Amino acid sequence: MTPGPMAGYQTNLRLTLPLTCVILEVILIILFAVLVEYDHETDAKLWHKHLLQHNDSNYNNDFYYRYPSFQDVHVMIFVGFGFLMTFLQRYGFSSVAFNFLIAAFALQWATLMQGFFHGMHGGKIHIGVESMINADFCTGSVLISFGALLGKTSPVQLLLMAVFEVTLFATNEYILLSILQAKDAGGSMTIHTFGAYFGLVVARVLYRPQLDKSKHKNCSVYHSDLFAMIGTIYLWMFWPSFNSAITAHGDDQHRTVMNTYYSLAACTLATFAMSSLVGPGGKLDMVHIQNAALAGGVAVGTAGEMMLTPFGSMAVGFLAGTISTLGYKFLSPVMEKKLKIQDTCGVHNLHGMPGILGAVVGAVTASLATREVYGDGMEDVFPEIYAGNFSASEQGVRQAISLAVTLGMALVGGVIVGFILKLPIYSGPPDTICFEDAIYWEVLTALIALPFHPGMRQLSENKKYL
Amino acid sequence: MTPGPMAGYQTNLRLTLPLTCVILEVILIILFAVLVEYDHETDAKLWHKHLLQHNDSNYNNDFYYRYPSFQDVHVMIFVGFGFLMTFLQRYGFSSVAFNFLIAAFALQWATLMQGFFHGMHGGKIHIGVESMINADFCTGSVLISFGALLGKTSPVQLLLMAVFEVTLFATNEYILLSILQAKDAGGSMTIHTFGAYFGLVVARVLYRPQLDKSKHKNCSVYHSDLFAMIGTIYLWMFWPSFNSAITAHGDDQHRTVMNTYYSLAACTLATFAMSSLVGPGGKLDMVHIQNAALAGGVAVGTAGEMMLTPFGSMAVGFLAGTISTLGYKFLSPVMEKKLKIQDTCGVHNLHGMPGILGAVVGAVTASLATREVYGDGMEDVFPEIYAGNFSASEQGVRQAISLAVTLGMALVGGVIVGFILKLPIYSGPPDTICFEDAIYWEVLTALIALPFHPGMRQLSENKKYL
Amino acid sequence: MTPGPMAGYQTNLRLTLPLTCVILEVILIILFAVLVEYDHETDAKLWHKHLLQHNDSNYNNDFYYRYPSFQDVHVMIFVGFGFLMTFLQRYGFSSVAFNFLIAAFALQWATLMQGFFHGMHGGKIHIGVESMINADFCTGSVLISFGALLGKTSPVQLLLMAVFEVTLFATNEYILLSILQAKDAGGSMTIHTFGAYFGLVVARVLYRPQLDKSKHKNCSVYHSDLFAMIGTIYLWMFWPSFNSAITAHGDDQHRTVMNTYYSLAACTLATFAMSSLVGPGGKLDMVHIQNAALAGGVAVGTAGEMMLTPFGSMAVGFLAGTISTLGYKFLSPVMEKKLKIQDTCGVHNLHGMPGILGAVVGAVTASLATREVYGDGMEDVFPEIYAGNFSASEQGVRQAISLAVTLGMALVGGVIVGFILKLPIYSGPPDTICFEDAIYWEVLTALIALPFHPGMRQLSENKKYL
Repeated sequence: MTPGPMAGYQTNLRLTLPLTCVILEVILIILFAVLVEYDHETDAKLWHKHLLQHNDSNYNNDFYYRYPSFQDVHVMIFVGFGFLMTFLQRYGFSSVAFNFLIAAFALQWATLMQGFFHGMHGGKIHIGVESMINADFCTGSVLISFGALLGKTSPVQLLLMAVFEVTLFATNEYILLSILQAKDAGGSMTIHTFGAYFGLVVARVLYRPQLDKSKHKNCSVYHSDLFAMIGTIYLWMFWPSFNSAITAHGDDQHRTVMNTYYSLAACTLATFAMSSLVGPGGKLDMVHIQNAALAGGVAVGTAGEMMLTPFGSMAVGFLAGTISTLGYKFLSPVMEKKLKIQDTCGVHNLHGMPGILGAVVGAVTASLATREVYGDGMEDVFPEIYAGNFSASEQGVRQAISLAVTLGMALVGGVIVGFILKLPIYSGPPDTICFEDAIYWEVLTALIALPFHPGMRQLSENKKYL
Repeated sequence: MTPGPMAGYQTNLRLTLPLTCVILEVILIILFAVLVEYDHETDAKLWHKHLLQHNDSNYNNDFYYRYPSFQDVHVMIFVGFGFLMTFLQRYGFSSVAFNFLIAAFALQWATLMQGFFHGMHGGKIHIGVESMINADFCTGSVLISFGALLGKTSPVQLLLMAVFEVTLFATNEYILLSILQAKDAGGSMTIHTFGAYFGLVVARVLYRPQLDKSKHKNCSVYHSDLFAMIGTIYLWMFWPSFNSAITAHGDDQHRTVMNTYYSLAACTLATFAMSSLVGPGGKLDMVHIQNAALAGGVAVGTAGEMMLTPFGSMAVGFLAGTISTLGYKFLSPVMEKKLKIQDTCGVHNLHGMPGILGAVVGAVTASLATREVYGDGMEDVFPEIYAGNFSASEQGVRQAISLAVTLGMALVGGVIVGFILKLPIYSGPPDTICFEDAIYWEVLTALIALPFHPGMRQLSENKKYL
Repeated sequence: MTPGPMAGYQTNLRLTLPLTCVILEVILIILFAVLVEYDHETDAKLWHKHLLQHNDSNYNNDFYYRYPSFQDVHVMIFVGFGFLMTFLQRYGFSSVAFNFLIAAFALQWATLMQGFFHGMHGGKIHIGVESMINADFCTGSVLISFGALLGKTSPVQLLLMAVFEVTLFATNEYILLSILQAKDAGGSMTIHTFGAYFGLVVARVLYRPQLDKSKHKNCSVYHSDLFAMIGTIYLWMFWPSFNSAITAHGDDQHRTVMNTYYSLAACTLATFAMSSLVGPGGKLDMVHIQNAALAGGVAVGTAGEMMLTPFGSMAVGFLAGTISTLGYKFLSPVMEKKLKIQDTCGVHNLHGMPGILGAVVGAVTASLATREVYGDGMEDVFPEIYAGNFSASEQGVRQAISLAVTLGMALVGGVIVGFILKLPIYSGPPDTICFEDAIYWEVLTALIALPFHPGMRQLSENKKYL
């Protein structure tokens, strides 16, 4: 009943996973006890003192102006990313549940790392809804890297990766936003570019020459593709909330939402057009629809809060959907064959290239900012230009430098972390049992094993389904 | 491995779909560039000028009072409608993805059409969160029509239908809301009645006498019915947000939400009661639960913002669930046999009849409006009555006329558009390959083909599963 | 094609279900007509009078500060609970649809019962968004009980149970919150402890000695476990909204959200650790991930609004995940064998023990409350301590008494209601056809029947999958 390769195979997961989880969580609890405090909007005493002193109202607690956005972001992290990766026929449990595990860890760790970099208050990290959004953002970056490694890593490796990646993310974010004074509200650079290239480099270091022994499982079945569409649609719908979640209140949030909405709509039409154009007999490919239709959200992650104009957003989205779909079709196979990068979910096409596009669009849009167009709203979008500290073109240059820094951090960090993860002590799967839940889960393998037939092998070798 | 009818069949999708998508999107981008501007709440300069002039706060940007409703509506459009239609065993990809495609197009086109009718500002269309909600509403109407045609049309036909239907929708909406001064916040008339009857007439014109050649695929399987329930439940939960999304702020939104909540609850009990009553041996039918339980939301689409009272809402919901379930059981088979209307999703039962019921309930409730009951709140609900421009009974008459206009527009428009869509140039499926993803999608048909057996044919012929 | 046990079996559902639904709904409509009125925030006249008298703004209508939380709770009730229970291979229709039915009934009935206890206004029950949240909360309690009975009861039995349970819930809630002045915003006691133990006692009374005749259906299949994860993830994501939905505005809601967020994150790591530790070869069990990872939300249901501190929340969550997972592994089999409690979903592990833990944590945290820590915020969290009516330790004692009262009400109520439900007149399934949709639904049984094989039986006897 059990397929051949599983027979007698046994990981050391029982030792490594409980140990890793318990040690990490105990460290987190201790560090939170020592370092973390409610901020002035979540602390009973401080908030009520504030109310008295400023004659303010409970209704002005920032909770009411950030929490709906936070929940949309939260859905993207746990349902969006989690279900998007369930497209594999035999890896649904791992996709949604490892996503769940590493996100639950990363958001706690990110609270500490980002709190450390964003400035301590008397030796303490102050937290509230905004830090929760930022923690979820940082988590998103880790999940993007997970997408490149999907099916080929143990949960222990993923947790370890999260430890390092969150640290590097917070460092990079600090350099970009605090030192370079770059703008990147929706994270084209900090989240997408960083997460994608970090993950791709790790995947390169963890290259498995014998992976084709698991290739018949590296494809989808009918209903697994529908589960994946749950992830896609939630990501697509809530991306406007993602890009706007931490922008300034008022016109900024409102405009960011709208730019993202139109960018995604245009991206969707481009994706269908390109998918049909390159498909055999004009047939559409679910992989493109599930992924490339989202590239429009990534590509306005930096410029979404700027005066990009609705038609500008649409043009960017259209371009993003086009390059993303073509990347899935033509670039991914080359990257695997020539560069030895096995990118399970194609994060290079969904987050990598559109992330770079987003960074460039952001740099150009910033360098064109004028007082004429922004009025006093300049203060919220480009405080340094408003204050006269630097010109629009200098802002543009700083945006461009930020992209270079991000790529550098991702590449160097990815190499180091990749080699750490390569040690053979983390219960990783052998090449013959990748993309397979049965190695980590109690599952009746007989029930999910599809009858092998030639057409299926054909399909997976052609990488039609990733 | 491939089923017989598919052998050698080839559409011209590769030509028509990319061409249609690219041409439409390029036109949209150009028109947006020429015509569309940020409104005063999304434009950096205008909003900050407003803040200064009115000493206003960023927290009063309408974004914070409309965006949560918008996101709920957005979920209904993309997850609700999209997954509701995945009930067919071999049409899940097309259901959720064509829904995605035509919605992404329609919301852009609707922005222009509605902007044109709702009034230009110095030759420009001004957009913000309210126009986004309205665009999603208009999109909903197109998706209702899609439900009648599900499985029998190509994506090219659907996009073309959207071009025309959005235009007619905006015209009808303008006549009702601006000329007749009718009230229809939740769209019993503008969205549901219009979308349903337009779609039914198109389905009539596109009648396929040989459709029974595909009938063994026109039914559900176990898990496809569960996917469809995702759509149902999301529509049900967020319908209060739908009906209240563009009503006046304050008591209006609050009351509309509550009326819809109780109407839907009562409707659900009626649906279970009727489904069991008419089922063999009292057995329930998933088709009824998936659809008729939602009729309560449709039926208070007009009167939901009025002082309908909670028990009034419940009575309307109970009635709607009853007629909708009975429609699925008794009316749909007759409509197919006698009127030659092949209504795949039974939109006549979910949107058609409950939409008319909603219009009538709205007309009656409006005609009973008194200053005694509404107080100064009359100004928000019935501004014309409040201003003394016309009496409550005249408002009721205008509501009734609006229903007649809507039905007329839907019928005439549907005939014309139906004949346009009938041209054999849009890659539509032949009668033998309807309700089948494999014609438009790269899919391992062997994996999803259910073994044919007599019970299944029996079932689909009886239309138990639609 | 039909499995043996179904042959010739016929319930009297056609009589009992329509009758029950129609009678209950008619009673509800009549009682609403007589007793229920819009409150001053949903009534057009009253709200506009309020606006004038207090020079207030529509933006201050409580709708805007409660409705996003309400919708999150609503999603938990209908999607969260509904899909969590679809893990059974042949009971997905009943799980999600009976959940839908009894929730739709219970929220209406709860409006009346809670309105009655929470105080009538001139003989009328006044309703608005807060009463809607409370009605959904009460409904949640009924759905927890449903989890213990899943697969073994007819919809008629479930509706009848809801009639009694809602009444008892409202009584218990009144005793706790109004008489004992206990705090329990997230319902560790009122919702989780009450719902779990009530359901467990009913399950005990309805004990089926011959249930092993249906045991081969009392397990999951691959995709049913993925459907269940939809429920899990939504419950997990929105639990912060659940616990904070009716706390005081400002820091209270903000803090409750954050405490719950960190408690759940820590709980998730504990769950993975324990599941791997007790699994064969370290393999994870989907049952644990689906359920125990949520225990952290239950366990801060009382203390979440207090100054529990983030690390305190994490410690509680970690503990909750641990005991819940161990409960699934070791306690549930014992409870079934020794105590004859057949707890289908293991609600004792997810809601029972974590609910008691939450009550204890709440009592301890309350008894430690000082003016030093809470400042003027004490008024919102502990109004009686703030007013000097009783000391912190007395508050703690009252919290502890509340737990005892809740357990007593659940046990006594459960026994009585269990015996009422035991009468053989409600179309309940025989022992041979439990966990089977085909008894209540039109479903092609042949399509979903899995081929019986020895490994499957093995699995279900070991209760690996519940």
